[in-house]
Amino acid sequence: MSHELRAVSWTGTALSLIDQTALPRTLRRLDVRDVDTLIDAIVRLAVRGAPAIGAAGAYGVALAVDQARRENWTERALADAVARLRAARPTAVNLAVCVDRAAARIPEGPDAVLAEAGTIVREDLAANRAMAAAGADWLVERVDAGRPLRILTHCNTGALATAGIGTALGVIRELHGRGLLETVYVDETRPLLQGSRLTAWELAQEGIPHQVQVDAAAASTVVGGLVDAAIVGADRITRNGDTANKTGTLGIALACAHAGMPFVVAAPTSTLDLATATGASIRIEQRGEDEVLNPAAGAVPDGIRSRVHNPAFDVTPGALVTALVTERGVLEVASGELPGDHWT
Amino acid sequence: MSHELRAVSWTGTALSLIDQTALPRTLRRLDVRDVDTLIDAIVRLAVRGAPAIGAAGAYGVALAVDQARRENWTERALADAVARLRAARPTAVNLAVCVDRAAARIPEGPDAVLAEAGTIVREDLAANRAMAAAGADWLVERVDAGRPLRILTHCNTGALATAGIGTALGVIRELHGRGLLETVYVDETRPLLQGSRLTAWELAQEGIPHQVQVDAAAASTVVGGLVDAAIVGADRITRNGDTANKTGTLGIALACAHAGMPFVVAAPTSTLDLATATGASIRIEQRGEDEVLNPAAGAVPDGIRSRVHNPAFDVTPGALVTALVTERGVLEVASGELPGDHWT
Repeated sequence: MSHELRAVSWTGTALSLIDQTALPRTLRRLDVRDVDTLIDAIVRLAVRGAPAIGAAGAYGVALAVDQARRENWTERALADAVARLRAARPTAVNLAVCVDRAAARIPEGPDAVLAEAGTIVREDLAANRAMAAAGADWLVERVDAGRPLRILTHCNTGALATAGIGTALGVIRELHGRGLLETVYVDETRPLLQGSRLTAWELAQEGIPHQVQVDAAAASTVVGGLVDAAIVGADRITRNGDTANKTGTLGIALACAHAGMPFVVAAPTSTLDLATATGASIRIEQRGEDEVLNPAAGAVPDGIRSRVHNPAFDVTPGALVTALVTERGVLEVASGELPGDHWT
Repeated sequence: MSHELRAVSWTGTALSLIDQTALPRTLRRLDVRDVDTLIDAIVRLAVRGAPAIGAAGAYGVALAVDQARRENWTERALADAVARLRAARPTAVNLAVCVDRAAARIPEGPDAVLAEAGTIVREDLAANRAMAAAGADWLVERVDAGRPLRILTHCNTGALATAGIGTALGVIRELHGRGLLETVYVDETRPLLQGSRLTAWELAQEGIPHQVQVDAAAASTVVGGLVDAAIVGADRITRNGDTANKTGTLGIALACAHAGMPFVVAAPTSTLDLATATGASIRIEQRGEDEVLNPAAGAVPDGIRSRVHNPAFDVTPGALVTALVTERGVLEVASGELPGDHWT
């Protein structure tokens, strides 16, 4: 993949991010040289997707180390900056894990920190390719439609969300590459439209047939049999397979369970939080009301302030996850194969 | 209710509609004097909601009769105009039923047609009040929360969607009036935001506590127990209780079934289509792609045309409908009380 299309890359002196708030109208990059600019970029979703913010967080530690040197920070100031970066978004486990990995190398010097970030990116790339192959194999064997598959997905789990070809969207790309994909139903993914802005953009770039739908249409698309399977990413997966992912995922899983259709989660093992027993302990990020009551969309009553409930994620019980596709293999969670039994 | 806030009223010479495309920014009325203007208003959802378009359709027959007189139409031209009006939107049964009722009076003259439309409006008003009382009674008895109730609703089923106080929103108003309502979770209802534009506006006008959420949050709001019940309206209900309603309703019903929470449909018996056995035969209106790929929301990739899947409705199996609230009483459909057994 060219530098141009990598969501997260290192220029040699700065962290370079695709500004995902500007897509699909404008493809522009942000060059980030300090921790607070990176935290801001993470909070306002200029960089997003659990694996991508993990990689960005690791490079952020390198930026912090460099900043500490330039600005003569105390050790305490550096530790504080790393802690703030680690907590920029709470739900995805990858950010904290990757920041911790990079920070553990600080005593070895700046090059070691950068090297760790590079390793994280290479691991994610390799994990993407392994998941794509494993997920496509599993789907083709399980669905057995006798024709190319129709897949529903939610949010963006592609190149923009990872260091590579994507998690769920990597599996979709792989199906397309094998000539086994008919079309993709893309949930628009309100409030920030990661589906219609980002996933549709990625699919269109590669000529992959797709159609956008409102999130509320997902249940009837599944129950009506317009698709053969749903596949999504994840932000955090607990020991029992409970899966935190973009708001709306739970509803898709319930529809798949009702229809007897595979509900597939594709996520690298770095998304596993095996220290946590169940999804009940996952902290769900609540975001601002302006994301929902967008004045441009005409949905703000003049002179009225409706309150807003804006959880960024929901938790799907492991019992609804037909298959968890990782780079180390596929677990059929709903049939009893739990991450905590395999990878602790 | 004042004329100002009636979605559909008759001025003596014209049909007066609240232009619901302009809300919540502007409260303005359209005076309609010919059939084609009315069809256009129905198609672009300036008037919407199954009972409201039923009433508007009945007055539309009066407009057609008047136009036929003014413009010397043939009987055939009048019949054609009435048929086009009847088919302006296909999913809600009320439009066809009310147009047929008004058209059946044409031989008796213009006053009889107008009288029939007036009867339809009075019936809907009375049905709204009866449903509000019956629905509130049922919910209070069934939920038994020991505190005011928290209710989830979808789309707009209020004064704007009916001739009276609303169907599902009428029940919510009644709970509020009795001091038995804590708050309402309002799905924004993409693509046209009938929830955040219209329901939030109606609730705010009356000081009823509410919070808007994206449609994709509904499943976790239900499964997470943030509400005690969900209540929605309907556009067409078949003999076995299958219910066509705004896209997204099915997902709410599935979440309620998973959570063991009441899923309630409030609809006048005029919404029943007892000639149809199951929801599989209901024609689901597909609407245009521009509703979803709204340029103002930044969701149209430049130079890319994503296809769009935009069904305006979905069908919820009767087996998922805990209670069907009508003006003639409450049927517990999921427990086996089918409309076709009671009202044929």
